[in-house]
Amino acid sequence: MSNKTVSIDVQKDLFGANKGAAISNADEFKKHGIHAFDVMGSVGSGKTLFIEALCEKMSGRYKILMVAGDLATRIDADRVASHGIDTVQINTGNACHLDARMVRFALKDVDLSKYELVFIENVGNLICPAGYSLGVEKRIVLLGITEGPYMVRKHPLTIKRADIIVINKIDLAEVLDFDVEALVSDVREVDSDLPVFLVSSKTGQGIDEVVHGLGL
Amino acid sequence: MSNKTVSIDVQKDLFGANKGAAISNADEFKKHGIHAFDVMGSVGSGKTLFIEALCEKMSGRYKILMVAGDLATRIDADRVASHGIDTVQINTGNACHLDARMVRFALKDVDLSKYELVFIENVGNLICPAGYSLGVEKRIVLLGITEGPYMVRKHPLTIKRADIIVINKIDLAEVLDFDVEALVSDVREVDSDLPVFLVSSKTGQGIDEVVHGLGL
Repeated sequence: MSNKTVSIDVQKDLFGANKGAAISNADEFKKHGIHAFDVMGSVGSGKTLFIEALCEKMSGRYKILMVAGDLATRIDADRVASHGIDTVQINTGNACHLDARMVRFALKDVDLSKYELVFIENVGNLICPAGYSLGVEKRIVLLGITEGPYMVRKHPLTIKRADIIVINKIDLAEVLDFDVEALVSDVREVDSDLPVFLVSSKTGQGIDEVVHGLGL
Repeated sequence: MSNKTVSIDVQKDLFGANKGAAISNADEFKKHGIHAFDVMGSVGSGKTLFIEALCEKMSGRYKILMVAGDLATRIDADRVASHGIDTVQINTGNACHLDARMVRFALKDVDLSKYELVFIENVGNLICPAGYSLGVEKRIVLLGITEGPYMVRKHPLTIKRADIIVINKIDLAEVLDFDVEALVSDVREVDSDLPVFLVSSKTGQGIDEVVHGLGL
């Protein structure tokens, strides 16, 4: 039997062209006293339902804007809008992530003085968005337990660049026979200080703890 | 309430630099009488288990090589190797997809005359791999029903570029209350001629039909 491993060294300019726009977005959010969050995760990790759960919990206390990134459709923005939240949908066409310039472009006609909280739902992808800072206060990485047990070990860079980890769909742990503690350990291996929350956006479990963890 | 949609026009050279290497790979596979398949799908769509199920079914009839793409680890290659299959793991570092040059580089010291079937498991990502032809006979796109109901409508380009669609984890349809027929309809909307297979790699349901669909 023959087994080999080949490592490819791809040099990406992860921050160069994007950095200026990220700083400018951060300045803009700060000027208006806005708390902004980048919600990242794979397709189907439950980002939209998570944002809906946060909005339900906080729309009485904060004026919220939701920015949704997707290649096509405005399905996600419409779901959040159905809770009475203002939304901007960014359709990226072929692009597999949001970058700071897209966010700046999408917000240029938006009166930010109307808002106190901005949730940016990134394109569904556990890899590419990690390379592009949007100028937010915190990056939240969602891991849906339906994605299998290896997502942390296979994507250490995405975990390293997160400020908060949300392990989502925790209500399915039993039926999927999923070892949640092992996944938490994998996160701790990458960054022992990273806050990890066990959440079911569907049942609401853990949402209060996330709100607290975001300092809201 | 305010809701808007912004479309970004990103021009990517989807085929330019990659095309020559894809043609060269295709020539190489053809020279050795190899059937090669690119297995694409999001993180956790079940690509590895699907390939394991195909290998179990076909290793008596074909000499198989499995090529695995991941940012880090050789977890997937090792899983397939445990079935006695030869493997090559490509670790892409930051890169969110395989391209034809990576495959060519990874296979340059491999004696292809030993094989009749090559399964290439692409990086877990429903977006980026679609832009890079690897020089295979067919592209198989896996959609795990755990990824939610919108994955086809949000990723029309990936569907358009597929030769075969596998709707995987069909054994979970009932417990997740997932409308499989609606997802099949979404595929038909994008391409009415695309073969769609309902599969559970876990139970083996639909695997024989896929083997037949691949012409093997």
